[in-house]
Amino acid sequence: MNAETTPLSSTPRTTLRRHRERAQTDRAVLREVLDAGLICHLGVVADGDPVVLPTAYGRDGDTLYLHGSSANGAFLAADGQRVCVTVTHMDGLVAARSVFSHSVNYRSAVIFGTAAVVKDEDERWQALRLITDHLIPGRWAAARQPTTKEMAATAVLSLPLTEASVKVRTGMPIDDPADHDLDVWAGVLPIEVTFGEPVPDPQLREEIPLPAHIRDRAS
Amino acid sequence: MNAETTPLSSTPRTTLRRHRERAQTDRAVLREVLDAGLICHLGVVADGDPVVLPTAYGRDGDTLYLHGSSANGAFLAADGQRVCVTVTHMDGLVAARSVFSHSVNYRSAVIFGTAAVVKDEDERWQALRLITDHLIPGRWAAARQPTTKEMAATAVLSLPLTEASVKVRTGMPIDDPADHDLDVWAGVLPIEVTFGEPVPDPQLREEIPLPAHIRDRAS
Repeated sequence: MNAETTPLSSTPRTTLRRHRERAQTDRAVLREVLDAGLICHLGVVADGDPVVLPTAYGRDGDTLYLHGSSANGAFLAADGQRVCVTVTHMDGLVAARSVFSHSVNYRSAVIFGTAAVVKDEDERWQALRLITDHLIPGRWAAARQPTTKEMAATAVLSLPLTEASVKVRTGMPIDDPADHDLDVWAGVLPIEVTFGEPVPDPQLREEIPLPAHIRDRAS
Repeated sequence: MNAETTPLSSTPRTTLRRHRERAQTDRAVLREVLDAGLICHLGVVADGDPVVLPTAYGRDGDTLYLHGSSANGAFLAADGQRVCVTVTHMDGLVAARSVFSHSVNYRSAVIFGTAAVVKDEDERWQALRLITDHLIPGRWAAARQPTTKEMAATAVLSLPLTEASVKVRTGMPIDDPADHDLDVWAGVLPIEVTFGEPVPDPQLREEIPLPAHIRDRAS
């Protein structure tokens, strides 16, 4: 099997006990969910307690990259530790006839693994490029790239995409047949995440036009 | 001091070491961030490892409520355990002249506390109403309410809103003054989360009109 077709490993943690029909074990779906996301939620254990922080990320094949300040002790403390990274898309609110059958249409990826602080300078550079271009494709090449001092101020974590649970719910509410006679509206409220018109920095020099990569991201 | 003016407790965990200007200690801001959110990310420690799951929530004063299946052992295992609940709004991508100064406009609330499975049936009912109406205000009263069997199949967790870190970033990129001469566009791409046109269940009886609470949520 090559990397494209290797199924995600199934562990007790990623084997769903409820709503198994929502589990997607295909690696391509995992990549799609990650690539379509903006930020992730990183979970770490600090002094025995869970901490969940929103942060940017990038993906290179089957490796996820996160970045933080090299002055951030909590971020560096994740080196060699088990972490959980979750990316969630909210696609719609599912209004059923009964309160109990209400649901949410969503796509989520929950990744478990051991994080490592990346030491190799080329890999760090590549990871930061991926994180930057994940949010705005083409931005890395268009902006001023990091100085040695800026690189030193930045820490990068890597996480292998080997143990993951991907869940997708789509479609209409599933009510008890007996509830279909009720006078209650049922359906889906789609949720859309879009970009508004780009707002130039008031200090931007007038002669600098809106670049294609910003226009492309906003459209 | 009454509840409205009690400042959030400051602990080593919620005292920001970086970007202190982004910290909002006002309880009203915490409530605003929570009330404007759709879902949260719940962090728990399971077998020593962090697990981060997206889930719905509701708020009653200074108590947060989450719900899950009463067959969900991981959810019930949070009873009496430290958890972390994070709600994040992505408001914009901040494109600076340098890669290093790129940022994100966001509002986030990170809540730490000890979760408790709610046993009181009235409180459980009220919590489920709040969670339902958090996503679609007015929905609880419009839909069929839970049966005894459905209530038994549902578990509710409560979490006091006493230890929280609220961060808000707004506005333009902050570049080094030396970078202002660069020929690089800088500004903000606003992110908007909106509801699309409600999609009725194809099985919905034709005579049932779109109710006001759905129209209000979608608009």
